[in-house]
Amino acid sequence: MERDAVDFPVSVVLPAAGSGERTGLSTPKQFCTFLNRPLISFTIETFERIPWIERIVVVVAKDSYDPMLHIIQQFHHAKVKVVEGGTTRHRSIFSGLQAFSESSNGPVLPRPKVVIIHDAVRPFVDEEFLLKITLAAKEHGASGAIRPLVSTVIATTSEGFLDHSLERTKYRASEMPQGFLYEVIYQAYQRCSEFDFEFGTECLHLALQYSGINAKLIEGPPTLWKVTYKRDLAAAESIIKESLSLSACLISGAMAETVELSSRLQRNLESHHMTTGVNLFETEEMLKVFVETKHALLYPVVIVWVHVCMSDSAIDEELNAVMELSMKVKQENILLYGVQIIFSKVPELWERSVTRLTEITESLIRDRNPVLIGQMLRV
Amino acid sequence: MERDAVDFPVSVVLPAAGSGERTGLSTPKQFCTFLNRPLISFTIETFERIPWIERIVVVVAKDSYDPMLHIIQQFHHAKVKVVEGGTTRHRSIFSGLQAFSESSNGPVLPRPKVVIIHDAVRPFVDEEFLLKITLAAKEHGASGAIRPLVSTVIATTSEGFLDHSLERTKYRASEMPQGFLYEVIYQAYQRCSEFDFEFGTECLHLALQYSGINAKLIEGPPTLWKVTYKRDLAAAESIIKESLSLSACLISGAMAETVELSSRLQRNLESHHMTTGVNLFETEEMLKVFVETKHALLYPVVIVWVHVCMSDSAIDEELNAVMELSMKVKQENILLYGVQIIFSKVPELWERSVTRLTEITESLIRDRNPVLIGQMLRV
Repeated sequence: MERDAVDFPVSVVLPAAGSGERTGLSTPKQFCTFLNRPLISFTIETFERIPWIERIVVVVAKDSYDPMLHIIQQFHHAKVKVVEGGTTRHRSIFSGLQAFSESSNGPVLPRPKVVIIHDAVRPFVDEEFLLKITLAAKEHGASGAIRPLVSTVIATTSEGFLDHSLERTKYRASEMPQGFLYEVIYQAYQRCSEFDFEFGTECLHLALQYSGINAKLIEGPPTLWKVTYKRDLAAAESIIKESLSLSACLISGAMAETVELSSRLQRNLESHHMTTGVNLFETEEMLKVFVETKHALLYPVVIVWVHVCMSDSAIDEELNAVMELSMKVKQENILLYGVQIIFSKVPELWERSVTRLTEITESLIRDRNPVLIGQMLRV
Repeated sequence: MERDAVDFPVSVVLPAAGSGERTGLSTPKQFCTFLNRPLISFTIETFERIPWIERIVVVVAKDSYDPMLHIIQQFHHAKVKVVEGGTTRHRSIFSGLQAFSESSNGPVLPRPKVVIIHDAVRPFVDEEFLLKITLAAKEHGASGAIRPLVSTVIATTSEGFLDHSLERTKYRASEMPQGFLYEVIYQAYQRCSEFDFEFGTECLHLALQYSGINAKLIEGPPTLWKVTYKRDLAAAESIIKESLSLSACLISGAMAETVELSSRLQRNLESHHMTTGVNLFETEEMLKVFVETKHALLYPVVIVWVHVCMSDSAIDEELNAVMELSMKVKQENILLYGVQIIFSKVPELWERSVTRLTEITESLIRDRNPVLIGQMLRV
């Protein structure tokens, strides 16, 4: 990646004042939570991780101003300024742009060379694509993401009949992010009409009409999609969960089998952290490390405590200890689960148990189900 | 619903020969499984449930012909005929239409007055909307579902710059289902060119060009969306799981508290089936009823066996019995889970336990996680 090519200031405007009526939910989509964190915080995190992005202006509705400040604080977002938006998308974007020029919301932010405009409800944009958009905006004055059309687009008559269908290959869906030389888009908004503010949908169109700039269009990946309908919340959750790997298996039991089990599990569950010979009472100390290093600030950490036993005799002491400890660390965004595995000298039986343990552990890590914390599952 | 208005024969053509490359998966989307059942079977079920729909012609690629016959058999689909498709969507639809007119695949099906063309990967269409499409097709010769555009549509120059953006309000996305008088669409396909067969995307366009029929366009609900990308699989799974209610809680324990618990759970978990005083060994008999009545043929049935105990003493016997029984009924598409709840005379503690039990039971019913069957969870 040619990150070094960005030797000029870049900032972001993130309109988030929409009411999200298309999901049919009472909470606007950008504030729906996934793993205890609002969607907008995931989008902000995406931009904050990129070193060449300086500031992120989040534009929210009046009622969301204080809740948004709270989110910024809770998840330690350091690059964000929150401003109040207008009644339409274009008015909100203009409010965001004004934060770099004129201000009734405190000090003016340093003016960027290029400003990226994105949506709060598109959390999965990656650095590589943002780089393309940014460099194209610098070169051509404006740039925008496009995607192939999923459906045929048709024109309708006023009586609701088919007039004609468009040739799919000539058209594209205009998506976000878009990039602009700050002066180009700021000028466009200063000059545009009330009608544009009220009914316009496309910043690229304003740049063309009021600043004479034909935007460079760049085909983006399918992950640019916008969380629009209720079903998209499930899709977003599954993508977020798939991207997570913060989890650890702690394996207890004094036997040689514990070590062997650990290396088996390590192979089966790539990229997860294994520790052996940890009794439950030492586990608590380890959990503190996760909390102190802020590993659990943005994403819940999963800990699976695996207990190897010699028989299926009751382990009431461990049962209660796991439950208690899990309740305690839940506050710290750590999800603790227990699994009891009974050792067998018969290789086939042991093999089957290890397979079951892998399946259960994978499922616990993937689902991150808070309702099941503290349970002691059996293999 | 004016079902009675359909006093003429209606059949369906379901093209399912696509390779589904946009999901990035090796299995075409229509054959991806949800709760052990391929997506296409859900779509077929939707049409089979509608009494005024006579036949469903499913058009598949050559390689999928035998697997498709197997699916029909396994899930007892009674209205379906499978035919082999062509290399493009239009060729496949024409193959489907030919099943009503000329046949190299066995006997010709009775010709419908109206034929509905749908996608195998749009399982969530409802009867009410199909009725609208059917009646409009009968009246106007052709009809199709439309949806508002989610993104602005733009025209690009050959160098990849913005040419112009379309005014969103004048255009719509063309979706499925579409309906046609059989003679209208069959004639259109008989007359259309090789170019249409190869590159065309829109049946409505063919009906206009070759049969002179302007289709009536009807705005459909968002559930008409098409499973296109990998993320859509997660969305589809969540919609399918939300629609399920086949589940039962069996509550065991000889105390008066069992009855009280049952009525509490019944209130908390609306529309689920509760039975009290069932010991685990009687449970097996009840499970047989689900199997015999074919309740578990299309959707897995969830059984949560709740055991009320007086103390947290070990219940090894039940633990093992639940695990064994769960393995046995898994083959029958029944997911059995155990929950042990310890009775407390302290009202606050009991209250908290019942809340936890509700949460755990809801989560087990909603997630239908096959990996956790046979576990005895603790409240």
